[in-house]
Amino acid sequence: MSSLSTADHLRAALDGPWSEIREQARTQLAGDRFTDDPSLDFRAARARVLDQMRAVAQMGYAERGFRRENGGTGEPGAAVVALEMLAYTDLSLWVKAGVQWGLFGGAVENLGTERHRDHVKRLLSLDLLGCFAMTESGHGSDVASLETTATYDPDTQEFVVHTPTPSARKDYIGGAAEHARMAAVFAQLITAEGNHGVHCLLVPIRDEHGNDLPGVTTSDCGLKGGLPGVDNGRIVFDHVRIPRENLLNRYADVAPDGTYSSEIENPSRRFFTTLGTLVRGRISVGGAASAGTRVALSIAMRYGMKRRQFSDPDTGGETVLLDYRNHQRRLLPLVARSYALAFAQNDLVRRMHLVQTGQDLEPGAQRALEKRAAGFKVAQTRHATRAIQECREACGGAGYMTENRLVTLKADTDVFTTFEGDNVVLTQLVAKELLTAYADEIRDLDALGWVRFAATMAGDVVRKRSGVRQLIQTLRDRSGESVDEGDLSRRSVQLQLFADREDYLVRTAADRLRVRAQETSPFEAFNNAQDHILAAGTAHIDRLVLETFIEGIGLIEDPDARELAERVCDLYVYSMLEENSAWYIMHRFMSVERAKAVRRGVNELVDKLRPDALTLTEAMGVPESMLRAAMLHDASVYERQ
Amino acid sequence: MSSLSTADHLRAALDGPWSEIREQARTQLAGDRFTDDPSLDFRAARARVLDQMRAVAQMGYAERGFRRENGGTGEPGAAVVALEMLAYTDLSLWVKAGVQWGLFGGAVENLGTERHRDHVKRLLSLDLLGCFAMTESGHGSDVASLETTATYDPDTQEFVVHTPTPSARKDYIGGAAEHARMAAVFAQLITAEGNHGVHCLLVPIRDEHGNDLPGVTTSDCGLKGGLPGVDNGRIVFDHVRIPRENLLNRYADVAPDGTYSSEIENPSRRFFTTLGTLVRGRISVGGAASAGTRVALSIAMRYGMKRRQFSDPDTGGETVLLDYRNHQRRLLPLVARSYALAFAQNDLVRRMHLVQTGQDLEPGAQRALEKRAAGFKVAQTRHATRAIQECREACGGAGYMTENRLVTLKADTDVFTTFEGDNVVLTQLVAKELLTAYADEIRDLDALGWVRFAATMAGDVVRKRSGVRQLIQTLRDRSGESVDEGDLSRRSVQLQLFADREDYLVRTAADRLRVRAQETSPFEAFNNAQDHILAAGTAHIDRLVLETFIEGIGLIEDPDARELAERVCDLYVYSMLEENSAWYIMHRFMSVERAKAVRRGVNELVDKLRPDALTLTEAMGVPESMLRAAMLHDASVYERQ
Repeated sequence: MSSLSTADHLRAALDGPWSEIREQARTQLAGDRFTDDPSLDFRAARARVLDQMRAVAQMGYAERGFRRENGGTGEPGAAVVALEMLAYTDLSLWVKAGVQWGLFGGAVENLGTERHRDHVKRLLSLDLLGCFAMTESGHGSDVASLETTATYDPDTQEFVVHTPTPSARKDYIGGAAEHARMAAVFAQLITAEGNHGVHCLLVPIRDEHGNDLPGVTTSDCGLKGGLPGVDNGRIVFDHVRIPRENLLNRYADVAPDGTYSSEIENPSRRFFTTLGTLVRGRISVGGAASAGTRVALSIAMRYGMKRRQFSDPDTGGETVLLDYRNHQRRLLPLVARSYALAFAQNDLVRRMHLVQTGQDLEPGAQRALEKRAAGFKVAQTRHATRAIQECREACGGAGYMTENRLVTLKADTDVFTTFEGDNVVLTQLVAKELLTAYADEIRDLDALGWVRFAATMAGDVVRKRSGVRQLIQTLRDRSGESVDEGDLSRRSVQLQLFADREDYLVRTAADRLRVRAQETSPFEAFNNAQDHILAAGTAHIDRLVLETFIEGIGLIEDPDARELAERVCDLYVYSMLEENSAWYIMHRFMSVERAKAVRRGVNELVDKLRPDALTLTEAMGVPESMLRAAMLHDASVYERQ
Repeated sequence: MSSLSTADHLRAALDGPWSEIREQARTQLAGDRFTDDPSLDFRAARARVLDQMRAVAQMGYAERGFRRENGGTGEPGAAVVALEMLAYTDLSLWVKAGVQWGLFGGAVENLGTERHRDHVKRLLSLDLLGCFAMTESGHGSDVASLETTATYDPDTQEFVVHTPTPSARKDYIGGAAEHARMAAVFAQLITAEGNHGVHCLLVPIRDEHGNDLPGVTTSDCGLKGGLPGVDNGRIVFDHVRIPRENLLNRYADVAPDGTYSSEIENPSRRFFTTLGTLVRGRISVGGAASAGTRVALSIAMRYGMKRRQFSDPDTGGETVLLDYRNHQRRLLPLVARSYALAFAQNDLVRRMHLVQTGQDLEPGAQRALEKRAAGFKVAQTRHATRAIQECREACGGAGYMTENRLVTLKADTDVFTTFEGDNVVLTQLVAKELLTAYADEIRDLDALGWVRFAATMAGDVVRKRSGVRQLIQTLRDRSGESVDEGDLSRRSVQLQLFADREDYLVRTAADRLRVRAQETSPFEAFNNAQDHILAAGTAHIDRLVLETFIEGIGLIEDPDARELAERVCDLYVYSMLEENSAWYIMHRFMSVERAKAVRRGVNELVDKLRPDALTLTEAMGVPESMLRAAMLHDASVYERQ
């Protein structure tokens, strides 16, 4: 035990509840078999990824995500973690696996019933390749407005799936261009009684030779910014007939005579329940974004510790990049944020696991999970976009070479801020939940009905969040804090600052909606405050992330690892406060002197952490064997002799 | 005349001194001949770009950049502008042309003498394809430390060019992988007397069949993050012998007997004079970055004016993206910054033209030009990276499709923050010039000698910048300003705030160096203040950009176009102030109330500018025929019927 290094202890903490799965994957996925090959054209890349997916299937990565009765092992948390590890190898493989087992598989498993069980078994083994046909050219974020129709014909007991307009074309659908044989299609369900809203149906789209079935026209999205191994495509339906049983009927069904029934009466609630079962996809995107970011930061940090440029007249030698203040400042706060988000993601997956295995039956747990999943997806994908870009630039010309992977990581993760929920829309969703204090009513209101509702709640809108208050109190007790409550190095003070920002922004956004809603239309009221509302959502996410970081550190037993993690947490907090210092000063939560102290604090912390740079890098848990950046192996070329 | 629209007038202003060249290029370069073809693999892309370059050569784009005695027409400003227009078509073509005529051609023209005249004629016509072999694997930013040697052998009257270590390998060299036959090689020039520092020599690297010449080993950098049409490669020299006359001998020569001579005695000054002649490359990079950004913003703005998402309950219809406050806030300030930078670039090219045609003989003009070129290169490439990323995200999934060009623009411009001078290093260079008040001495000091020098200057370091003071006074006089000097809507007050920030940062950075330099080594003193020094450089650049914007507006005669430009300038100023509001409050240049007014001001300005969105887009000067984004032509699919 004593042979474990500080990096080992810290890595174990970052690995979280399913650390053994991560450890196993580090061995299983190493080597050339699962790497991307950037020299392939996109058709060859797609074929390679499909082969890799078959290998992954044989290693049992997929079963964990499915219930026992469907042929799985019923470990949703482990499934998300295992698939996340694919992001260390090739993000195309991760997306392709995510589409097959997470999105398509998840739809069949969670929206289907026993009559679809055979499909689950076949999709698990890749005997059935599927795709998830939700987004249309005309509507992505606004799922409720999808235009594709599924009209029931009682005469033949079939649904007629149809694309009524050009903008109703299914678009960007992973698998639709080449490999998928069946699509989980989201469409407006229409019976003689009328339109029942968006439902999901299984529609065969290709025959065994890969040809489009009658009435189905697929096409290829072609080249994208990245993810060459994913065959994104388009689908147009021309009155395609499918059996009545192909409706995934867990929450609603149509009887042979065309009678519609659902255990959830309210159409809006039914819609959100349907979408809610798909939360795992959103959670997975955040995790993969973070995994890709850790790869990029591991590469850039290691390069920064080797590469030298410009001589130091004091020593005569050239200076290692990471010894420059600016280089420390550009990379170390990003590492700190990656630590914070790793703890956040672990906590999120744990919560998801408890909800989805029925261990957390709290009313509201599912809804809280959805909000948290939306928020952490935003935080992690935004961080990925920014951090990987910084890594590329911090490695100069070498960073631009594909052989050093950073540009591929950037290109592949770029769309993560968009898919599984556009980040702006998701941040708004988080804020909306806060502003309406989770009121059940608001989901049933039309598009902007929640604005009127939020306006009525103003003043009362910041809930008594017993959780954060209790955590602050615990932190105070632990540190024996009594005097000098304003000491910024204390965790309780830091957390209070995050909570203050959130509370203030939520309350004032609500006030603003209230004032405006009396004068203007809901859209005007909302739009006028949109930047404010988004800031409130972001502040909430930031506070949750810090909480999970603090809780994560609390579980580290090794004193050295713990102390190091505390310092990283300080850097995370200080750099977040620095980023938001204008806000803090403007709203009198911070004096000018304190804001200056925060700025100095960031400098002091990067100084302090510099000697631990390698430990911090190793603890991010991307083994050297999985880095595959030529510049790290070709040291003689990039380091002067 | 009256038939010209506001957009036409505004475009003419943004087009600047060589507007007729831009107009001509908009016709000449339209159509499929000069577009990129993302479906090609990198070898085919390179061949296509070479073909395109031959067509460009025939249209006379290159001659403008060369003196009459060398076969050109002697219009350096026109040359930079004409080549910049290639950035609207394909950035690989722009880079390839820039390497051939700007870097390789520029070296031969500016560092060579009459004995190299024939080379200029041949490179102009593409009879001679060249490359610019400066960067090595081990040294990019620190050019003075290049390791390649050129040792004179008086017995044979030859130079022996050699790569003494693995890190001395020439790397990332455009043209070195395939097409170049000759390299302008930067190497330490060694004679019997010793090492004379870095000089440039012409070294043939391939025979007429494209095979490496004896002693030369080229290799291919392979795939990069973008720019597939540029054949970047590596070169290793094994005692390659070239004639004595291949030294580009404008500033220094070696006599047949091996005697070294130079009209510039000081080696450091000689080095900087040599590099200074290459300033055009850096200026061109900034211009191309801005051109690429205008293409991206034109695409994203037009999409934002068409694409609808989520219904507005007041109207029943769906809301156009650009009607959302958040969408306005994410795009319009970037458009405003692109306007500012277009004026800045025009001003820079004009200054370069005057210096390089001998019309500006002010002592110090060349040096001021170099500082400005470095600063504007940083500002424009940083803006490109950020703005194009924002455009991609603002177009959602469609933005990720290669057919909509944004991802290609992002990938191609990504390395612009690195090449022709890393942005961090260049910002430091700008700051260093400020901190030492252009003292001639400092260029002769070793690596960090300027730190000691700057320390002695502290307190006295902010020069009396008569320019900015006079401009502020002119603006005050013009607006009849007497009372209420603090009115933030006044241009003079805005400019004063920019100048105050710069002055304060420069002065305090100097103070910090002074205090530290007494206690620690120069490196410690510098490194401890590095973030402060960089901030000073950035503040200086920001102030210069604003000045050129103001001066540019002053030349607009059409009242509507002028009024619109004034509003755009306000948005530029307010969004810059908002970005830096923490600094302004912390240093008491802005009250909390004023900072809040700035924030509100941004919102009011995007509101006001929204109705002019199309005019602003058209005035950026990228014709619709050159946008080539599928989603703009396929409106029926992305807009609901």
